[in-house]
Amino acid sequence: MPTLEHMHAVVNSYVHALNAADPDAIVALYADDAVVEDPVGSAPKKGKAEIRAFYAASVAFKLEVELEGPIRAVAGEAAFAFRVSFPMKGKRMTIRPIDTFRFNADGLVVHMRAFFGADNVHTE
Amino acid sequence: MPTLEHMHAVVNSYVHALNAADPDAIVALYADDAVVEDPVGSAPKKGKAEIRAFYAASVAFKLEVELEGPIRAVAGEAAFAFRVSFPMKGKRMTIRPIDTFRFNADGLVVHMRAFFGADNVHTE
Repeated sequence: MPTLEHMHAVVNSYVHALNAADPDAIVALYADDAVVEDPVGSAPKKGKAEIRAFYAASVAFKLEVELEGPIRAVAGEAAFAFRVSFPMKGKRMTIRPIDTFRFNADGLVVHMRAFFGADNVHTE
Repeated sequence: MPTLEHMHAVVNSYVHALNAADPDAIVALYADDAVVEDPVGSAPKKGKAEIRAFYAASVAFKLEVELEGPIRAVAGEAAFAFRVSFPMKGKRMTIRPIDTFRFNADGLVVHMRAFFGADNVHTE
C-alpha cells in the first residue's frame, strides 16, 4: 500500500501538472487500466488514451488550480478539495470540486472521481 | 435520484446532529442496509444497529463539527470537508476529514466513507 507521503506527493504533482498544462505528467500518475469519473455520474474515461484526451482538452482552458485545505490520505486512497478557475468568454469561471484517488500497490492512481455539482460552478 | 437540495439538506442535518450529540437523528439519515467506513480502510459498520453504536460512542466526546468549504453534490453522491474537535485529556483534538455519501433513490445514505489519515489529526 502506498505511504501517506507518496499519496500526498501524487496529489501535489497532479495540481502542479494541471497548472503547467502538462497532460503527459498527469497521465504518468495513472495506471494503464485507470478509470476517471469527472464529474461523478458522467461517462467514465477508461485507460490512458481516453484519460490523456480528457486532460489535454481540459488544460487547453489555461486552468489555475489551488488546493483548499489539507490532503486527506489513508489506506491507499486520498481526497482533496480544490478550486480551478479559467477564462471563459470574457469572464472567469471557477469550479470547486472534491476529488478522490484510489491507488494500486505500485502507487499509481487506478480510480479518480470528481465531486462537483451545478452549484459548485461560478462565473464572474 | 435525490436532488442537490436534498443532498445538501442531509449533509447539513448530519453536521447539526453531530453537534447536537443526537445519534438517532444521525441514524435516521441512513438506509437500513447502509455501510459506514470511518475511516476508509477500517472495518465497515453495517446496518443501523452497528451504525448507531458507532455514532453513540463518537458523540460521547462532545464533538464540535464545522463544514470547511461548500458541499459538493452530484448524481446521487456528495462530498464535504469539515473539521471536528473535542476535548481529550486536557487538550483539544482536531480532525479534518472529507466524507463522501452515496444516496439511494429514497434519498437515504447507503454508503459513507470518511477520508482522514494520521496527518489530519492534531492535538493542541
